[in-house]
Parts: sequence; C-alpha cells; structure tokens
Amino acid sequence: MVTKRSEKAGLPPGTLVPVRSRGESATVLKAFTYDEGSYKEITVPQVADVPPCADGTITWIDIDGLADLRTMNDLGERFGLHALMIEDILNTDQRPKIEEYQDHLFVVVKMLTLDEETGGLNTEQVSLVLGHNYVISLQERPGDILDPVRDRIRNGTGRVRKKGADYLLYALLDVIVDHYFKVVDALGERIAALERKVLVKPGNEDLVTIQELRSNLIHVNRYVMPTRELAGRLYILQNPLIEKSTRRYINDLQDHTVYIAETISTFREMLSSLENTYHAGQNARMTQVMKLLTIISTIFIPLTFVVGIYGMNFDHMPELRWRYGYFAVMGLMGVLVLFMLLWFRRKRWL
Amino acid sequence: MVTKRSEKAGLPPGTLVPVRSRGESATVLKAFTYDEGSYKEITVPQVADVPPCADGTITWIDIDGLADLRTMNDLGERFGLHALMIEDILNTDQRPKIEEYQDHLFVVVKMLTLDEETGGLNTEQVSLVLGHNYVISLQERPGDILDPVRDRIRNGTGRVRKKGADYLLYALLDVIVDHYFKVVDALGERIAALERKVLVKPGNEDLVTIQELRSNLIHVNRYVMPTRELAGRLYILQNPLIEKSTRRYINDLQDHTVYIAETISTFREMLSSLENTYHAGQNARMTQVMKLLTIISTIFIPLTFVVGIYGMNFDHMPELRWRYGYFAVMGLMGVLVLFMLLWFRRKRWL
Amino acid sequence: MVTKRSEKAGLPPGTLVPVRSRGESATVLKAFTYDEGSYKEITVPQVADVPPCADGTITWIDIDGLADLRTMNDLGERFGLHALMIEDILNTDQRPKIEEYQDHLFVVVKMLTLDEETGGLNTEQVSLVLGHNYVISLQERPGDILDPVRDRIRNGTGRVRKKGADYLLYALLDVIVDHYFKVVDALGERIAALERKVLVKPGNEDLVTIQELRSNLIHVNRYVMPTRELAGRLYILQNPLIEKSTRRYINDLQDHTVYIAETISTFREMLSSLENTYHAGQNARMTQVMKLLTIISTIFIPLTFVVGIYGMNFDHMPELRWRYGYFAVMGLMGVLVLFMLLWFRRKRWL
Amino acid sequence: MVTKRSEKAGLPPGTLVPVRSRGESATVLKAFTYDEGSYKEITVPQVADVPPCADGTITWIDIDGLADLRTMNDLGERFGLHALMIEDILNTDQRPKIEEYQDHLFVVVKMLTLDEETGGLNTEQVSLVLGHNYVISLQERPGDILDPVRDRIRNGTGRVRKKGADYLLYALLDVIVDHYFKVVDALGERIAALERKVLVKPGNEDLVTIQELRSNLIHVNRYVMPTRELAGRLYILQNPLIEKSTRRYINDLQDHTVYIAETISTFREMLSSLENTYHAGQNARMTQVMKLLTIISTIFIPLTFVVGIYGMNFDHMPELRWRYGYFAVMGLMGVLVLFMLLWFRRKRWL
Amino acid sequence: MVTKRSEKAGLPPGTLVPVRSRGESATVLKAFTYDEGSYKEITVPQVADVPPCADGTITWIDIDGLADLRTMNDLGERFGLHALMIEDILNTDQRPKIEEYQDHLFVVVKMLTLDEETGGLNTEQVSLVLGHNYVISLQERPGDILDPVRDRIRNGTGRVRKKGADYLLYALLDVIVDHYFKVVDALGERIAALERKVLVKPGNEDLVTIQELRSNLIHVNRYVMPTRELAGRLYILQNPLIEKSTRRYINDLQDHTVYIAETISTFREMLSSLENTYHAGQNARMTQVMKLLTIISTIFIPLTFVVGIYGMNFDHMPELRWRYGYFAVMGLMGVLVLFMLLWFRRKRWL
Repeated sequence: MVTKRSEKAGLPPGTLVPVRSRGESATVLKAFTYDEGSYKEITVPQVADVPPCADGTITWIDIDGLADLRTMNDLGERFGLHALMIEDILNTDQRPKIEEYQDHLFVVVKMLTLDEETGGLNTEQVSLVLGHNYVISLQERPGDILDPVRDRIRNGTGRVRKKGADYLLYALLDVIVDHYFKVVDALGERIAALERKVLVKPGNEDLVTIQELRSNLIHVNRYVMPTRELAGRLYILQNPLIEKSTRRYINDLQDHTVYIAETISTFREMLSSLENTYHAGQNARMTQVMKLLTIISTIFIPLTFVVGIYGMNFDHMPELRWRYGYFAVMGLMGVLVLFMLLWFRRKRWL
Repeated sequence: MVTKRSEKAGLPPGTLVPVRSRGESATVLKAFTYDEGSYKEITVPQVADVPPCADGTITWIDIDGLADLRTMNDLGERFGLHALMIEDILNTDQRPKIEEYQDHLFVVVKMLTLDEETGGLNTEQVSLVLGHNYVISLQERPGDILDPVRDRIRNGTGRVRKKGADYLLYALLDVIVDHYFKVVDALGERIAALERKVLVKPGNEDLVTIQELRSNLIHVNRYVMPTRELAGRLYILQNPLIEKSTRRYINDLQDHTVYIAETISTFREMLSSLENTYHAGQNARMTQVMKLLTIISTIFIPLTFVVGIYGMNFDHMPELRWRYGYFAVMGLMGVLVLFMLLWFRRKRWL
Repeated sequence: MVTKRSEKAGLPPGTLVPVRSRGESATVLKAFTYDEGSYKEITVPQVADVPPCADGTITWIDIDGLADLRTMNDLGERFGLHALMIEDILNTDQRPKIEEYQDHLFVVVKMLTLDEETGGLNTEQVSLVLGHNYVISLQERPGDILDPVRDRIRNGTGRVRKKGADYLLYALLDVIVDHYFKVVDALGERIAALERKVLVKPGNEDLVTIQELRSNLIHVNRYVMPTRELAGRLYILQNPLIEKSTRRYINDLQDHTVYIAETISTFREMLSSLENTYHAGQNARMTQVMKLLTIISTIFIPLTFVVGIYGMNFDHMPELRWRYGYFAVMGLMGVLVLFMLLWFRRKRWL
Repeated sequence: MVTKRSEKAGLPPGTLVPVRSRGESATVLKAFTYDEGSYKEITVPQVADVPPCADGTITWIDIDGLADLRTMNDLGERFGLHALMIEDILNTDQRPKIEEYQDHLFVVVKMLTLDEETGGLNTEQVSLVLGHNYVISLQERPGDILDPVRDRIRNGTGRVRKKGADYLLYALLDVIVDHYFKVVDALGERIAALERKVLVKPGNEDLVTIQELRSNLIHVNRYVMPTRELAGRLYILQNPLIEKSTRRYINDLQDHTVYIAETISTFREMLSSLENTYHAGQNARMTQVMKLLTIISTIFIPLTFVVGIYGMNFDHMPELRWRYGYFAVMGLMGVLVLFMLLWFRRKRWL
Repeated sequence: MVTKRSEKAGLPPGTLVPVRSRGESATVLKAFTYDEGSYKEITVPQVADVPPCADGTITWIDIDGLADLRTMNDLGERFGLHALMIEDILNTDQRPKIEEYQDHLFVVVKMLTLDEETGGLNTEQVSLVLGHNYVISLQERPGDILDPVRDRIRNGTGRVRKKGADYLLYALLDVIVDHYFKVVDALGERIAALERKVLVKPGNEDLVTIQELRSNLIHVNRYVMPTRELAGRLYILQNPLIEKSTRRYINDLQDHTVYIAETISTFREMLSSLENTYHAGQNARMTQVMKLLTIISTIFIPLTFVVGIYGMNFDHMPELRWRYGYFAVMGLMGVLVLFMLLWFRRKRWL
C-alpha cells in the first residue's frame, strides 16, 4: 500500500509517464453510440477512428488499459483535455476527486475488489470525462464491473438509453459504488465469523486477523471518504452538463456512499470491541494459570518444608522416636491441606 | 448487523426487488379518512380502492407488509412517486433520511425494539410520504407502535383530528421516537444493574455483557444520529407542505432526538468507565494472587534449604551431634519467619 | 442517572403528566412587583390572584413545586403559554434550552448542588418565562439558590430594581450559573486531594474514587454544555424582549459557562493523568513482587538442589566420607550466593 | 490549579471584591506620555493626578497591583469603564478574551513564567484597555516582562514612539506572547532530556515527570488556546481604534500563537510516545524477570525431585546399592540440564 | 526538534537577527532573466547589481544562504518588502504560510529530506516572494532540490518559460512538495519492512523503531498540514498576481498535499496497528513463559513432597519396611504425572 509517487519528483507538471505495468494490458478502445431507439458498438484501433459525437445521440468511449501513450495524447487533442487531466489519468494512485473544466467534468474513482483467495484488496482507477454529449471512461485493466451498464445499453433496459450523457456518468459511478457493498459485505461476514470464533475458541491467529481486517478497513476507508465527498460535490454542482432530473439519482448515489462510510465506521468500532474481548479472554486465562501455580505452591511448599524437618539427621530429635510421630505428622499435614483448600474455596479460587 | 446490499450490485437504479422475507407478512392496506368532526376507517384489497383524497379531509394510507410488488407499483403510479423512492421503501436497510420531491416529502425512519428475552435489538423500517392532504405510511410488519396514533384518530383525542396532514406526519414520527426512549431506558437499566454487579461480585461474563451493551449502543446510535439530523432538517425545511404552527412540534421532536443522542453518548462513557473498573479489579486480584505466591515462597523456600542442609549425610557434620542442635535450628528458623513476617507487614503486604 | 422518559411514550404531545414526586412539594406562588422606587411581595393561593402586570413595573411570578396541575393550566391560559411549553416545564429531565415564542422567551436550566455527605450530584430544573414586563420562574422544590436575587429586589441592592424584566431573567440565570462554580470547585478540591493521596499512599479505593469523580464530571458536563450553548444563543438573539444594554451582562454569563466547560475538560484530563499514575504505580509494585520472588527462588532453589544431592542414601558417595566435605559444600554454596548477589546488584535488582 | 470562583456566587454582577492577596502588592500608578519627539514618565499617587490625554500624544497608564479598590473605581469613572470590566480586571482568573465597548477595547491576557526551581507554572493576569489615544495596563504584581516596551518608549527604539495607541497595545501583547516561547522552550528542553533518560536509564520517577510535564502542558494550553482565539479576533476586528497598518503586526502575533499551540500539541504527542516507550521497557524488563524465574525453576525443580528420590529411606531400593548408582544419577542429571539449556537456547531465551 | 524562539523574546518586532549558523553558508545571489525566447543567468555580488525587472520578461532572484544581513536589508529596500517579512525570512523556524502584501505575495514553505544514514529528518526553510514580474526565492543552504526548475528554465523544457511569474512560483512549490513524496515513500518502505519483521522475528528494538517512525510522522505532519492549508488558500486567493490559468496547476498542487496528508494519517494508523500486534505477541510469549513455569511446578512440587515424606527419619514408618514400598511409590508418582499431563492436554496447555 506504499505510495510510489516519488519517481516523478522534479519532472515538469503534466509530464506523461507510462503507468507501471500491472498486467500490461494493451489499450483497447470501444465506442458506444446510442439514442433511445438505436444503438451501435464498435471497437476501433485509434482515437481518430471514433465517429464524431453527433447531437441527439450519446457516445461512450470506453477505454481499457492505459499503456499506450499515443492514444492518451490523441484523446487529449481531440477532446481538448488539459495536460494535468491526462497526467492524472495515467497516474493511477490518484485520490478520488471531481474537477470542473471549461467544457467537461473530470471524475476519478476507484473500483474495489476483494481477492477471494488471499482476502487482499485490489484497486483499479477509473477516470471518467463527461462532455456535452459524450462520456469517456478509462480503466487500467479490462474488467467486468462496468459490464452491467454495457448490457443495459445493448438491451435498452433501465433508463440509460432514454437519458443524457450525465445519466451515463451516474450509471457508471453507481455500478462502481454498488461494488463497494460487495467488499463491505465480505468484510462484514469475516468480522461476524471472527466474532463467533473469538467467543468459542480464541487463538493467537485471531489477533492477526483483526489487524488484517482493520488494515483492510483503513484502506477501503481511504477510498470511500473522498468518494463520499465527490458524490456530495457532484450533487451540489451548478454545472450545465448535469441536468436537474439526474440530480435525484446522484443524491441516491451520495446516500450509498454515506451508508458505506457509516458501515465501515461501525465495523471499526466492532473490531475494537472484539480486540478488547480477545485481550480480556487472554488475561482471564493468564490469571487462571497464575492461580493454579499459586494454589499448588501454597499447598505443597510448606508441606515439603515440614517433611524436610523430619528428614534432618540430628542425633537428638525426640519426635523421630515417638511411636506415632510419623502418623501425627501426616495427620497434621492433612489438616493443613484441608484448611488451605477451604480458604481457597472461600476466596472462590476453586 | 451485516449489510446485504451487495445483492443488488449491477442492477439498474430503481429496480424493485421484493424485500427478503422476515416473517413474510402479506401486504395489508388501510385508509383512514378524517376531519375534525368525522372519521372513517376502511381496509381495502388494492390501491385502486382507496377513496380519492378530498380537500378538507385528511387521508392516511396505512400499509403493513412490503411483499406485494404490485401494490407498490400502483401506489407509485397513483400518487406520482419517483422510482427511486419506491426502491428505497422496499430496500429496508435504508439510513433514516428526508427527501423533498416536487409534490411530496419522503421520510424514512427506523422503529427500534429490544427483544425482552435475548436482549437483542430489532429494527423495522417505516417509510412516510407526506402529500398535500394525505400521508402514506409503510411498515415491514404489522405492529402496535403506531397504534396510539390510530387510537387518537379514532377517539378524536389530542390535536391530530384538528390539524393537517403535516401534523399527522409529526405524530407518527413522535410516537416512533418516543419508543427510542423505551430502548434507551432498558439499556440504561441494564448498565445500572451491571455497575452494581461489577462492584460487588465481578465475573468474566461481565465483560461479555459490557461488549454486548456497547454493541447495542453502537447500533442504536447508528439509527439515532441520522434521525437527529432528519429532525433538524425537517425543522428548518422551507416547504409549503409543512405549516408554520407544526414547526413548534417538530422542534420538540428534535429536542427528543438530541436528548437521546446525548444519553447514548453518556452511556458509552459510562461503559468505558465500567470497563476500566472491571480491569482494575482484575489487576488487583492478580496482584493479590502474586503476593500470596511470593509470601509463601519467600518464607518457605529458604527454610526448606535450611532443613535440607541438616538432611545431608556427611560423616562429619558437627552440628548434628550437638545436644540442642535440632532445637537451635528450629528456633533459628522461627526467628527468621518472624523477621520476614514483620518485613512483609511493614511493606503492607499482610 | 437513567432517564425515565419512556413512561410517556405513545401519549399525545402536550399531555400534562404530574411530575414524579421527589419530595412532593406543594405548589407555592409568590409575586414580586417592583420598580426602582417601590416594591411589593405577596404569596397568593392561585394564579387568578396574581395582580395584573402593569406597565412601568416588573412582576416576578416565583413558583416553587410543580405538583399542582391546575396552577399550570391557569398559568398557561392567563399568559398564553404554548401547550408544549407547559409540558416541558413539568417534564423535569429537559435538556437546558432556550425557545422563542410569539410574546415570550422560554428558558430551561438546571440548578446543580453536590450532596455534602454522599458526594452525589443533585439537579433541579428551573423553567423561566420572560414576557414584556414579567418573568415567571418555576422550580421543583423550594430552595435558597435564588434567594440572593430575592434579597436584592427586597433591599434594592445591585441594579435589578433599576432595570427591566430581561435583567431579572439574566440575574436569575447568573445566580444559577454561579452555583456551578461551587460544584466545580468542590470537585476540583476532591481531585487535588486524590492527587496527593495517589502519590503518597495509593490504594484500590482510589480507582473507585476516580471513576466516581469522572462519572460526576460526565454528568455535570451534560448540563454545562447545553447551558453554554443556551447562553451563546441568548447573547446573539435578536429579540425585542432583550434590551441592548443587558446583552453585555449576558456576554459575561456566557464567559462564565465557557470557563466552567473548560475547567471540566481540564479536570477530565487531570483524572486520566491520575489514572495513569495509579496504574503505573500498581505495575511498579507488581514488578517489585515478582523481583522478590525471582531473587529468592533463583538463590535458594539451586542451593536446595545441592543439599538434596548430599541427602541421597547411595552406599557409595565418596564426598560424604571426606573430612571436610560438609564445610566444602557449605563454602561452595556461600560463594554461589555471593556471586548471584553481585549479579543481581549489577542488574540493579537490589 | 483549582478555581475559586465560588466565593462570589450569589453576589450581584459587577460587585468589586479585592483580589485575594498573592504578595499583596500595593497599587502603583505610572503614566507614560509620548509622541515621536518627546517622552515623559511620572509616578502618581492617584488616578486624578494622571495628566489629561492630549490629542497627538499617547498616554500609557501602567498600573502594578490591584489591591486598591478606590483606584479601580476612580479609573472606571474617569475613563467611563463598564462595571463588568472592572470586575473582570479584579477577578484574576479570567479566561483570556477580548471585548469591544463603546469607546474602548478590553483585552485580558495571561503572563506565564516557569519557576526555575520547582518547575511549576506561574501565571499573572494582565488587563489592557485601549482608548482613542491611551492604553491602560493592569498587572497583579510589579514585574519585568513589560520592561522591554518601557525601555523602547524611553529610548525611542523600535517603532513604538512613531505609532499610535493601538501599536502600543500590540507591543504589550507581543512581549507577553514572546514570553510564552520561553516557557515552551523550557518545557521542550525538559522533554528532550527526559527522552534521553528514558532510553538510557529509565526509572519510576520518569513517569512522575511525564505526568508533571503533561499537567504543565494542559495548563499552558488552557491559556494559549483562548489567546490564539483572541489574536485571531483582534486581527479581523472592524474597530476604528485599530489602524489598518497595525493589522499586519497583529497577524504576526497571531502566527506566534498558532505556532505555540502547535508546538504544545506536538509536545503532547511526544509525551504520549515517551510514555509508551517507558511502559514497553517496563514490560520487557518484567518479561526478563519472569524468564529468569522460569529457567531456574524449570532446571532445578525436576533435579531436586530426582535427588529427593534417592534420599528416601526405603529398606529396599536396589539403585542405592549399585556401585556407580551415585555417578549414574549425577550424569543423568547433567544430561538433563544440557538438554534443557539447548531447548532454552533454541527458544532464544538464553 | 525543540524550538528556540525564546532568544528573541522582548526584542522589538521586525528586529533582524542573523540566523543561527547551520553550516554558515555565505549568501549567494543569482538572477535568472527569461522570456519564451531568451534566457540569461548571472551571479551577482550584491542586490544593487540585479538588473531591473523589465516588463515582458520574468526575473527570478535566487538566493542561497541567509547569513548576510546587508543583502536582506538591500532586498527589503529595493523591492519594498515589509520589515516583518524580512524578519520571517531570517527566522527559519516559521510555520509554512502565505501572506498577501500590497504588491507582492509572501510564501514560506519547508523543504524536507530524510538523512539516508541516520533516518533523521532534515528541514530547510524556503521563502518565496512573488511580485508583478519577478520571484525572489531564499533558501538556508545551497541545495539541489530546486535544480529541476533551474534546468527547465535553462533548457526551455516544460511550460515555465512560456508562462508568468506566478507559474514560476507554482513550479518552485511543486518541486518542493514533490520531494515530500520521497520522504513519505521512504517512511512507507520502512514501515512495510518493520511490518514484516514484527510478524517474523519481533524484538525489543522494534518498539524503538515504531516510536522513531511515529516521531518522524508527527514532525512531517507538522509541516504538511500548514502546507496543505497554504495550497488551499493559494487556490482560492483573489489576487491579481495569480493568473486564472495558473489556478488549475495550484489545484493539482493542493491535491498532492491532501494526498500526502492522508498517506501520513494512514501510516499513523498502520503504526498503531503494528504496535498492537507487537504487544499482543509479547503478551502471548509471556503467557507461554508462565505456562511452562506452572506446568513444571505443578508436576514436580507435589512429587518432591512425596519423596520428601519417605526421606523422613521416623523410627516407625511401616511403608519403609515394605518389600515393594519403593516401587509402589514410584508407580504412584508415575500415575500422578500421567494424570496431570492428560489434564494439561485437555486444557490445551500442551
């Protein structure tokens, strides 16, 4: 989770640096052109082949993979994107944010997925540019999180075909935020399972799990908090690119982010509580150990002293000569033990 | 308490999903029509049978059970409710909130009850829609929390029959928030009982109880905080649906939510304090255990060494031959014990 | 400190419930009528007997005891008080607050006193209504906290006779807040005494005292915070009932509440610090106990083993036959002890 | 540090109470009259002897000691000071604050000094009144903190003689805030020294020092926070008494207070960190103690048992008759010890 | 990290004090004059030799070393800098800040570097003055952090030659903030390395490292927080010296500071988490130690007592005479041990 921004220190702002390869996906351009009645989907080799964005139709330029710098440059020139915006798209450890430019709106968000096997957290940056009648989306890797939106455009389900480019932007953000619920639910299930385990059969590994889950929550939170802020700003934004009727949907999006943020905060409190339970259990076991040691020592150390006395080899020890000396000593020690057991019982140690 | 929103991830916004069955109550529609002088109450099979909302009278459409999707659709069409609003009504893990629409006000709140047997927290979502001269309320299960309002309408007690639809909305919110006091009072009593137990007869189970109560408070708080916010927003709302004279009552409602929130915060501080007391008591007992072990060991281990010396079988050990060797050794050990007891007493260990 | 509001859950708002008896004081009505030159004080049996509030004079209706519901109703009718206001007056676990009504200002505050014997915190609710030329004050029990103001009116000392009804309201609030200093000073003295005790002669009971004091501070804070807010709101209030010249005094009142709130916050930090000191002392003592046990065990357990060797009854043990075997073993053990003592000294355990 | 305000509870606001004697300094009045070219300094017995404040010159009335109530009354009358202002001047545990009156500005600040011997914190209240062409300063004791300003007026160094009364007010505040740096630097040096000691040679007394330093920081903070607020308010104040060119200097003053507040906050974090280090060291030492005890016990308790076996006096114990029984047992025990030492070494306890 | 501002306490504001020598670098003046087409760089002995700032070209006066007070004075006179600004430049423990003056903007920031060998944090103050067509930069020591900007001017790369003085100011701030990433990345790597070490092979020195890293983060944070604030204020500043097109870049700068601040906050949470893991590991090891001690003692102390019994020298002890007494006792003890081992196994101690 360590940042690696320092590699760019000293370079002029706006310098384009190819994204460090994480799978090195080739850049794939797709263009969806649709209106309420019709729909067209093409895969094009370069930006120049994207058909012009005609009025009355919406164009979604859907780009997977950021490795090809030339595509980025072409995109910037064709749509008049600011150099800093292109830099932010390539720099894939941006903080989720929203920026208003002259003719378009620029949104950076993170897609989150939990690795099913390792339980680790994967993130992927998605950059979205909203123009008058087009949306450009850029992801790091080809992935299926945005597929539901693609399908809705293809099949004409939902409202997306009936509405403008701003609704498409919303639909993309919505599907990304919906995936946060998956991550949060998975973490919630692991916390619930851990809660049961800590009560029934606690072990040292539980603490490691708690720290792991907490670390996951810290990192999810780092993406959720600015996303919540982003949704809030998008809602109050006075920008002609966002129609009034879409605002209601953005409000819903904001509700979701608030809900997720509160769930994470609740989970963190539950983990703290769980950690307390764990430590209290540990302490209770430690106290048990010490009590056992103390009971055994308190009973047998004095007895051992007593039998030591009569093991001494003095010539003149009258008791040793007594007929019932041995039995008297044994009886005395039995009484002593009884007394001590009663005392421990009264102190509720036994 | 784990959310399960992820099931809807990827579906288009506004998709209606039947609520996961918690008791699977059938949907029951009631309509109360009243003005200051008259009152009518009917149970209708479907939305179409609800009489039109005439001017001068107030209609309360009181719906129990959300399972019937058709009713929801009819309701949305007849009263012009937004698709997202219907979705929120069905999605019963909403965060309490208030939303302004063109012609109505939409409020989501939670009813809280403590399960008397298990001490667990039950929640039920109540959605309220305020229109010009009607209120629609939707609950998950038939329940008696709203009954006092129903009775007041039936009997004409209180102000509800003399006032408008906004007062009815307030009366429903008020009766729901009043029930929070029941939950908070019950938790308060359990905390007070626990406080006495921890001081008199602490046990390991107390810590579990503390964690349970804290968990309950975390979850109650999660509903109370947004309800407080909701009441505050309702108070400052400039909406023609809310009459000025009703605002005074809403202010009272807001006071109640603030009071509850502060009580919860006080309870959490008391639980922390209690946990400290418990751990301090544990530590004190542990120290007692260690002191006993140390006293016994410090006294008897050296003595055992001494008697061990005179248990040795050397041919030439002059003391063993002395007349009063045995008594001298015994006396010496007695003095040693006395000295140690005095030393422990001076250190206040005894 | 547990709330008991739940008893009213479900009742229509504005329902008057007799205050739960804490001493069951009868309701006593007094009326002070005064201007700069003259002064009259009468005790009346019912509200109807209060003389009309003439222009140019100030009337203070001073009511002790809230048991008589009829008086409350009469009061509401005569002075046009809102039903919710009367309900708040009777409901004596209100949060301190200020409310503006059409013709009057409604203030709820708490009087705090420390029970000298038990150290417990007593609270009493005081409701104040400011009208054009009158003030109504309502307390739960007859008490002497407001007496200084009564005396100033009787004797014409201070400014109270020269100023309007708003100054009387201020004077009553001021005398109540001044009493908070008494509570805070008493708590401060107990903290200072505890601080000395923990350093000189700590004991288990100190921790209980710390928790008690913290609990007291939590509860005082619960009244002080809204009172501070109340004073701040009163200061910035644009209400014709408050003259501009009185605002300076209200500012002073606000300063006092801020000062008290900061003192409480400092006290809480001091208690945390004290708790740390206490636990650190406990730990240090525990370490001492363990060191003693370890020193004694480390020295004598090996020696006991050595003497055990020569207590064995083997037929063939050459050392036992040696002339100076016994003395050699004793010397060897002496050297061993010396060496260990030196080692402990070097480790600074002795 | 315990407040003692409760002594005034019940007295009418504005009552002048002689300050509780802390050294009982007599009240000394000095008047500095200066303009850019000339300068006059006189010590006068009473307020009436202060020369009138002529236009074009600045008068600084510099008062040490607050015991003389008559001087305070005269001052109030001559300069038209509000009764509450005089009360605040005498009440020397005010919170630092700024108040605007009709014709003057009233500022209360605290001078802080660390007692070099005890390390305790001394505070002294300074009240400052800024009028059109005069400044009145009132201190509790004659002291040298303000001397640099006096010297600058006498010698005409700096800008003070060239500027107005508002600059004099600033200069006095600046010299007081500059002294906070002395206190903060001294605390910083003690923290740094403690940091070294805790790492090299920790002792129980370190924890007491940490608590002492923390307590000092809590109390310094209590004065610094409102002073920071005061400087901020002074900077944004729209008051004709403050010239625009002086505002730049006040901004500088504000920077200093922010800097001090942040330094204190950093110091508190460093103390927490130091406390953690200390406790961790304690725990590590405790673990060492326990390990030693366990190693010694684990090695010698079984051996003592073995030699005990052969110390039994049974008639029929074949081993005792063996020729090399003794040596075999000794060898066996040697092997056992070796084995255990290896095991401890593998567990890294040795 | 202890401040040393107290040396100036009492001096008139605006007094220039030579900076305490840290390397005592001589003051070196360089002047860069450039426009889009041409570029000139000269090193001058004194301020008077700096060529006049002509319209249409940008002049950067680049000063290393602050020891020469005369240069500072000359600079102040020539460019009309306020005395307090010069004082702030020399006083090298300023808090990062931005100040607007009549004709220029004054920015103070800190350059951070991590000492590669000791891991310590070095800071250097950089003061920046932005005028109409010039920028003055002042550093404490000659250093290479600003070199990338110098090179870009020399080579005409990036946008710096095409833009105004405000862009130069931005470029300098940007290169300084970029270096924060280096510091943060280095700290991040050390935290990641520590995380691995604590899980695999924890040691006492880890805790010292945690405290060191935390201390570093506290101090970096102290510079980052005001820098973030500064960037935010610079962005919203309505000042004619900042062109609108530059604001987009400043927004980017602000994003970087926010990102760094959040990374630091995440690191602090990770360190807390790591500390918990460490302590939990310590506790688990301690419990292991205690369990071993308890198991050994519980098994052997009773056995030692048993063999002690038969070591007694009573004349009349029938068992001693039995033929198989010895073997019976040995067998009994073997059974006892087996039983205890089973019991420990059932308690999962073994």
